[in-house]
Amino acid sequence: MSYSYVSHLECPKCQAVLEVTEVQQLCACGSPLLVRYDLEKVKEHVSKESIGRRPTSLWRYHELLPVSAKENIVTLGEGWTPLEKMPQLGKHYQLSNLYIKDEGIIPTGSFKTRGASVGISKAKELGVKQLAMPTNGNAGAAWALYAAKANIKATIVMPVDAPAITRKEVFISGGDLHLVDGLISDAGKIVGKLVADKGVYDASTLKEPYRIEGKKTMGYEIVEQFGWNVPDVILYPTGGGVGIIGIYKALKEMQELGWISDNKLPRLVAVQAEGCSPIVEAWKNGETESAFFENSETCAFGINVPKALGDFLVLESLYHTNGCAIAVSETELLTAQKLVAELEGNFICPEGAATFAAAEKLRKEGWIKEEEVVVCLNTGAGIKYPETVELANIPTLQPGEFIER
Amino acid sequence: MSYSYVSHLECPKCQAVLEVTEVQQLCACGSPLLVRYDLEKVKEHVSKESIGRRPTSLWRYHELLPVSAKENIVTLGEGWTPLEKMPQLGKHYQLSNLYIKDEGIIPTGSFKTRGASVGISKAKELGVKQLAMPTNGNAGAAWALYAAKANIKATIVMPVDAPAITRKEVFISGGDLHLVDGLISDAGKIVGKLVADKGVYDASTLKEPYRIEGKKTMGYEIVEQFGWNVPDVILYPTGGGVGIIGIYKALKEMQELGWISDNKLPRLVAVQAEGCSPIVEAWKNGETESAFFENSETCAFGINVPKALGDFLVLESLYHTNGCAIAVSETELLTAQKLVAELEGNFICPEGAATFAAAEKLRKEGWIKEEEVVVCLNTGAGIKYPETVELANIPTLQPGEFIER
Repeated sequence: MSYSYVSHLECPKCQAVLEVTEVQQLCACGSPLLVRYDLEKVKEHVSKESIGRRPTSLWRYHELLPVSAKENIVTLGEGWTPLEKMPQLGKHYQLSNLYIKDEGIIPTGSFKTRGASVGISKAKELGVKQLAMPTNGNAGAAWALYAAKANIKATIVMPVDAPAITRKEVFISGGDLHLVDGLISDAGKIVGKLVADKGVYDASTLKEPYRIEGKKTMGYEIVEQFGWNVPDVILYPTGGGVGIIGIYKALKEMQELGWISDNKLPRLVAVQAEGCSPIVEAWKNGETESAFFENSETCAFGINVPKALGDFLVLESLYHTNGCAIAVSETELLTAQKLVAELEGNFICPEGAATFAAAEKLRKEGWIKEEEVVVCLNTGAGIKYPETVELANIPTLQPGEFIER
Repeated sequence: MSYSYVSHLECPKCQAVLEVTEVQQLCACGSPLLVRYDLEKVKEHVSKESIGRRPTSLWRYHELLPVSAKENIVTLGEGWTPLEKMPQLGKHYQLSNLYIKDEGIIPTGSFKTRGASVGISKAKELGVKQLAMPTNGNAGAAWALYAAKANIKATIVMPVDAPAITRKEVFISGGDLHLVDGLISDAGKIVGKLVADKGVYDASTLKEPYRIEGKKTMGYEIVEQFGWNVPDVILYPTGGGVGIIGIYKALKEMQELGWISDNKLPRLVAVQAEGCSPIVEAWKNGETESAFFENSETCAFGINVPKALGDFLVLESLYHTNGCAIAVSETELLTAQKLVAELEGNFICPEGAATFAAAEKLRKEGWIKEEEVVVCLNTGAGIKYPETVELANIPTLQPGEFIER
C-alpha cells in the first residue's frame, strides 16, 4: 500500500516522459506536463467505499495525488466544499436540477487553494526553498500562505489593479510581494527574469505540473458527492483553464479506474467574459488553440487571461465531452451575482456568477434541457470582491432617530 | 425516530417552561431562554457511530437541534470546519498540542453562520415573515443571506464603523439595511422600537433562543473531531458570548448522553480585548454578572460588547469548568495575527487572533501546561478584515523593470 501511486510526468504534446522525483517545469517542447499514475495499482488497493470513510479534505484522494510521503502534506483543511441544490434559482431559470459547487468555502476563500496545497506539498517534497509567480491575486495569496507554512520563500508579483485583499494576504504571510503597474503578462516577465537569473522555482500557471492535480480534486468531489454519478453539465469560469483541465483529467482517470461509466461524461462548458473570450472564439471556429485576445477587460479579474498556456487542453476537454464555450456580458454576470444572493443566499464572486449567467443563456437556447443535472462552479467567495457590489440608497440614522414606515 | 428531539424552552433564571411551537423571545423575567431536548430518547435512537457516517454539515446533529421538520432546514453547507494542529506556532509558544478550530472556512466567512442557519431555519418553521437585528457586522451579514434564502424580510441595523464588507453582504442579499452613526447599542434601540411598534421578530443576540443551538455545534464538532474526546482548554473570543455559552451547553448535553466522561470538561477561557473586558473584570472579582464597560474600543470589532445579555451564563461556564477570563492588548492580538499567518498559513480575524495571544500569556503564566491539548477558536476569516493589515514597503515596478537582488 503506497500513499501515492504517482508514476511519471508525460508531455501531452510530444509524449516525452519525465521523472517526478526531480524538479520539472515545462517540457523541453514548451508544453505543460501532466502527472500520470499507476491506475492498475490504485484499482487493486483503493475502493470508492474506502474513500467514503476518510476525512473530508482533498487529501482523501491521496493515492491519486503526486505527494509520495504523508509528512510532506501542507494542509489548512482544504477541500470537500459544499455541493448544494438551488431550488429557487433553478425555478427562475427553468432548471429543475441546478447545483452550486461552492469553492468560496475553503481556506483563502478561493479554489486556487487546491492548487496551492498540492503544489506546495510537492515543492516541499522536492526540496524547493524559493518560488516565484505572477498572479491576478487569488493564486498568489493562496501560494504565499501555503508557502509560509512550508517554510518556502515566495516571491509574488501582481498588477496594482488586482483585488486589494489578496495583497494583504500575501503581505501578512511574510511573502515577498511586488506590484507591477501593468498586466499579469508584465508580472510574468518579471518572474521569468528571476527564474532565469536565479534558478528560482517557477510556480506560474501550468509551468509546474502539480497545480492541476490539486484542481482535479474538484472533479473527484463532484462525482463522489453525487454518489459516484456524473452530472449532465459542468460550467466553469475559464481564465488559465487549469480547473477545467483538472476536472476533465479526473473524469478520465475515474473512467480508467472503473469508478464511473465509460458511456457518459458531463458536457464541460468554458464560461468567459465578453471582454476576454479567446477560448470562445477558438471553439466557435473549431480551432485547437486560441489567439491572443487584445485589450481584454472584465470585472471578473480572475478570468482576464488573454492567452492561456493550456488553451489546447481546455479546447480538447470541450470537444471530447460535447461541451461548449460561451461568453457573458458584465451586466449579465453582475445580474446573476445579485440573483444568486437574493434567491439562494450565496454571495459568490463575479467569475462564479458568470457560470450562472451562462447556464441561463444555454437553457434559453435549449442547449441545456430542463431536467438535466447542472453544476455551476463558483470559484471564490464574494467577500474577496467587495468592489463588485455598489451600495445605493442606504439610509443612515443618527442615535435617537428611528426607522419610519 | 424523530428528526429532532426538541422538548421545550427553559429559563435559566426563573425556571419557567415555554413551548417551542410558538414564537418566543426573552422570558417574562428578562432572561434569555435555553432549548431543552428529550436526551433519553436521543440516547435510545442515536449513537456516536451513526453520526460519524453522516454528511459533514452541522445538521449531522439534527436530533439535538430545534428544527422539527427536515424540509425547514435552510443550509448553504455550513459546519464541520477544519480542526488543524499548529506545530510551528506550538513550538514557538511551547505548546506541543496547539490546535485551531477555523470558523473562517464556512459560508459568509464567520462563525455567525451557525447561528443564522439554525435560527433562520427555526424562524421559517415558526412562520416568521420579517425579522430585525442590530449587529456589529458579521451576524447581520449571515442572517440577511440566510433570510434571503428563506424568503424572510430582514431589517439589519449596523454602526457606520462596522467592517465595510458586511454591509455589502446585507445589500446584495436584498436585506433592508440601515446604518447608524453610533454604536451597536444605538442600533439596538432602533430595532427595539421596530419590534415594539410592528411586532417584527427580534433576532438580536439571545433575544431569540435558537442562535445558541447553532453555535453549540462548535462544541459537538470539536469533541467529535478529537474522536469523541475533550481537549484540555478551549479559548474563545468573547463579545456577546453566545459561542462559549453554546459550547458549554453542548458539553453538558454530551455528558448527559454519556458521549463524554463525567469526570472532565475542558477549561473554558473567555478572551477579551483590554479595550472592552467586562467579563474579565467580573471574573477577577468572582461576580456572577458583569458591569457595563465604559468607552470600549478595540479593532476586534466583534468583541466590542460592553455588556452582554448572557454575561451570567458566560461566567457560569468559566466557574464550572475551572476556566478563566483574560484580556489582551491590541498590539498582542495584531502580533499574534501576523505570527499565525507567517508560521501556519492561516489568515485569521483579529478576534480569533486574540485567543492565540491569550494562549501564549496563559502558557507563560503556567496556567496552561506544555503538553495540554489546547484549542483556539478563530471566529472568522481574515479576508473580512482587510483594514487590520497595514501594508508597508511594497515595491511597485513599471513594465520592463525587474526585481534587483
